[in-house]
Amino acid sequence: MELLKKRIEEQGKVIGTDVVKVDMFLNHQIDVDLLNEIGKEFKRLFADSDINKILTIEASGIGIACVAAQYFSVPIVFAKKGANRNVGDNIFKADVYSFTKGTTTTIGISKDYLNENDKVLIIDDFMANGKAVHGLINIINQAGAKLEGIGIVIEKGFQAGGDAIRSLGYRVESLAIIKSIEDGKVIFGN
Amino acid sequence: MELLKKRIEEQGKVIGTDVVKVDMFLNHQIDVDLLNEIGKEFKRLFADSDINKILTIEASGIGIACVAAQYFSVPIVFAKKGANRNVGDNIFKADVYSFTKGTTTTIGISKDYLNENDKVLIIDDFMANGKAVHGLINIINQAGAKLEGIGIVIEKGFQAGGDAIRSLGYRVESLAIIKSIEDGKVIFGN
Repeated sequence: MELLKKRIEEQGKVIGTDVVKVDMFLNHQIDVDLLNEIGKEFKRLFADSDINKILTIEASGIGIACVAAQYFSVPIVFAKKGANRNVGDNIFKADVYSFTKGTTTTIGISKDYLNENDKVLIIDDFMANGKAVHGLINIINQAGAKLEGIGIVIEKGFQAGGDAIRSLGYRVESLAIIKSIEDGKVIFGN
Repeated sequence: MELLKKRIEEQGKVIGTDVVKVDMFLNHQIDVDLLNEIGKEFKRLFADSDINKILTIEASGIGIACVAAQYFSVPIVFAKKGANRNVGDNIFKADVYSFTKGTTTTIGISKDYLNENDKVLIIDDFMANGKAVHGLINIINQAGAKLEGIGIVIEKGFQAGGDAIRSLGYRVESLAIIKSIEDGKVIFGN
């Protein structure tokens, strides 16, 4: 997606050789016009898929998923992180290790909102090691739902997550794939 | 907002005399059509305000703020919870006590995305004791920004938050105000 890649080049902040911060438009401050273009692109890519629910994970996936959901006319469900007494025990759970934070978090989705009739599109902002998506796939499998595909805004192609998930046979569409970061510059692979 | 109140009556789950869960359509599963109606209503209520940024707090405020932002044509910024090494030290911080979780969390907004030129609308899903909004007001004051108003989807009118913030002179617009919960039934005050 050229608009997105241009934005990453112009406003992404490169740190070292493996971090690009997109706080300015995607996951702290959010440019909702850009989210609309992202939502349209996900709809174009998954136009042939029969999707009745979008799944994401708090926090930064939520805005992207909500705006994209308008183009699919489906509800979203977001996995919650950590224990929360308001959620109760009626939940599917999975452990997700975050390399960024160096901690493991239990994510959960209420059994009321995911079941064997659901045909799911996962949407998230970033994929690096793919642990968050693995956690969501685990939960989708517990529910007996069908995973139609995975839409990622920015994939770090130099980390293992995307290829590992593609090798399991899942369809992954990443709007921008970062192949490498060289001399403070982002090199795209798509 | 009648559509919202009807939805709370039909799909909200009352627990005891002070909890209404709206997991089915607002803060776990999210009905994006409803979010659009909520966004339009906030725009109608704050049509006379000069707003250039919407502030919210992760996680469940993000989707509401993003969809509403489409009607205001402004970016959103969401306050992040807890320490995050990706955010760095260049942030405004405030402590927020959560009665639901019984813990204090530090919320933060990067100094890059809030400053003295900003005219801010706060949007959040729930207001009970108002601690999250107090934290955001604290941050807005640190930045020297101007708070134009506060839009809340569901206010628990029987708790102190809304009136405390109104008594400080801020404009609070709550789309549904729950006056009380009696015999498992929600009684609205607006």
